[in-house]
Amino acid sequence: MTQVATAAAGSVPVAATDLGVGMRFSVHPHCDDFVEVILGSLADAAELASTAGLTVESDEVSTYVGATSATAERDIVHYLTAMVVSASRRSGGGHVVAQVLLSRGCPGEASCDLRTVELPRVAPVDLRPTGLSCVAQWSLYPLLDGDSGVGDHMSYIEAAIAAARVRGVAAAPQHYATKLSGDVADVLSTVADAWTGVGAEVPHVVTHLTLAVGSPSSPAGGVR
Amino acid sequence: MTQVATAAAGSVPVAATDLGVGMRFSVHPHCDDFVEVILGSLADAAELASTAGLTVESDEVSTYVGATSATAERDIVHYLTAMVVSASRRSGGGHVVAQVLLSRGCPGEASCDLRTVELPRVAPVDLRPTGLSCVAQWSLYPLLDGDSGVGDHMSYIEAAIAAARVRGVAAAPQHYATKLSGDVADVLSTVADAWTGVGAEVPHVVTHLTLAVGSPSSPAGGVR
Repeated sequence: MTQVATAAAGSVPVAATDLGVGMRFSVHPHCDDFVEVILGSLADAAELASTAGLTVESDEVSTYVGATSATAERDIVHYLTAMVVSASRRSGGGHVVAQVLLSRGCPGEASCDLRTVELPRVAPVDLRPTGLSCVAQWSLYPLLDGDSGVGDHMSYIEAAIAAARVRGVAAAPQHYATKLSGDVADVLSTVADAWTGVGAEVPHVVTHLTLAVGSPSSPAGGVR
Repeated sequence: MTQVATAAAGSVPVAATDLGVGMRFSVHPHCDDFVEVILGSLADAAELASTAGLTVESDEVSTYVGATSATAERDIVHYLTAMVVSASRRSGGGHVVAQVLLSRGCPGEASCDLRTVELPRVAPVDLRPTGLSCVAQWSLYPLLDGDSGVGDHMSYIEAAIAAARVRGVAAAPQHYATKLSGDVADVLSTVADAWTGVGAEVPHVVTHLTLAVGSPSSPAGGVR
């Protein structure tokens, strides 16, 4: 990371619970019984959500997941992994796409001015391999303010992509996104760790991921 | 808009063609014959893409659409509208979700430093009503640099949401997104005009949209 923000002396650490850590996601099973797959997967993951104290609210477009524990980011990514694995299983290994928005930060809050607060660093996500392969496209948005003095937004993005490459899941740069592939756990860990890593330096960070399993147009399939 | 950037005297206007205007999108028909619906819709929209000189490249996760004409943004949104309408028709009015990333800007390019160039303003998008209703969730990301001196990122977002409200399509704020609803044309016009509007002040702007038609959990349906 070429741009490292330094918190002012005497700055106040921000609690993870004040950062508004959360996710908005949708799961898209490409099958006639998609309703059963979606509702069944939400039911499968309900106990995990309850144990972690997650707030889960589904509407007609997507599902919001909020977390306020000290392991908020980890809890959210564990829940997402469970949802993807469950939806894939319930659709019989068919084509399922998850659309994910992870957000961390306190936009517009004076208390989250990078020059006056110290942002928390969190441990890397610990996910066990799922045995389920995916291909994904990933975008990362460090939302700087024009007078924050903490460098240019592309430097954070480039550093995150370089880290993903070291982990072996970054397959290729594409227009507006980086292609990732590998076990669902490796891909989601990479995305989450980049998100929290930039979040230790930039108060407001959002990342988007389109993750596909069972795609008929992957090398093993036959659509294309 | 509370933050208005002023180009330096003698600054050079950036051509739209140099801004890297483009889209990455995926269409998710929730039905067993999703492959036929997706490929059929791409075929339906191929002539429109060809006439507008768009670059269309599909891979196993999504489709990239690039535009370099003077009406690049308009051409892209017209294409997207055609894809959504076609996919809905081909799926018999079933549940179809479009995931959309619109990008405009020249990240990391010295030539696009806001203090030395003048960003082009583009006309509002002209879309005819489609007769197809949708619900959507929308996020806008003005990607400022920390030393750009052009205000805070939330002010651009809040102004865009206020404009959407005036147009009557912004239904409600949600976590990390704004809910939009209405005719597909009205929703896509609102999103595109916000994207190009901020893009006249911020060199690099990305916006994400999840757009659903035929949702069984909408008020007329019965999932929830």
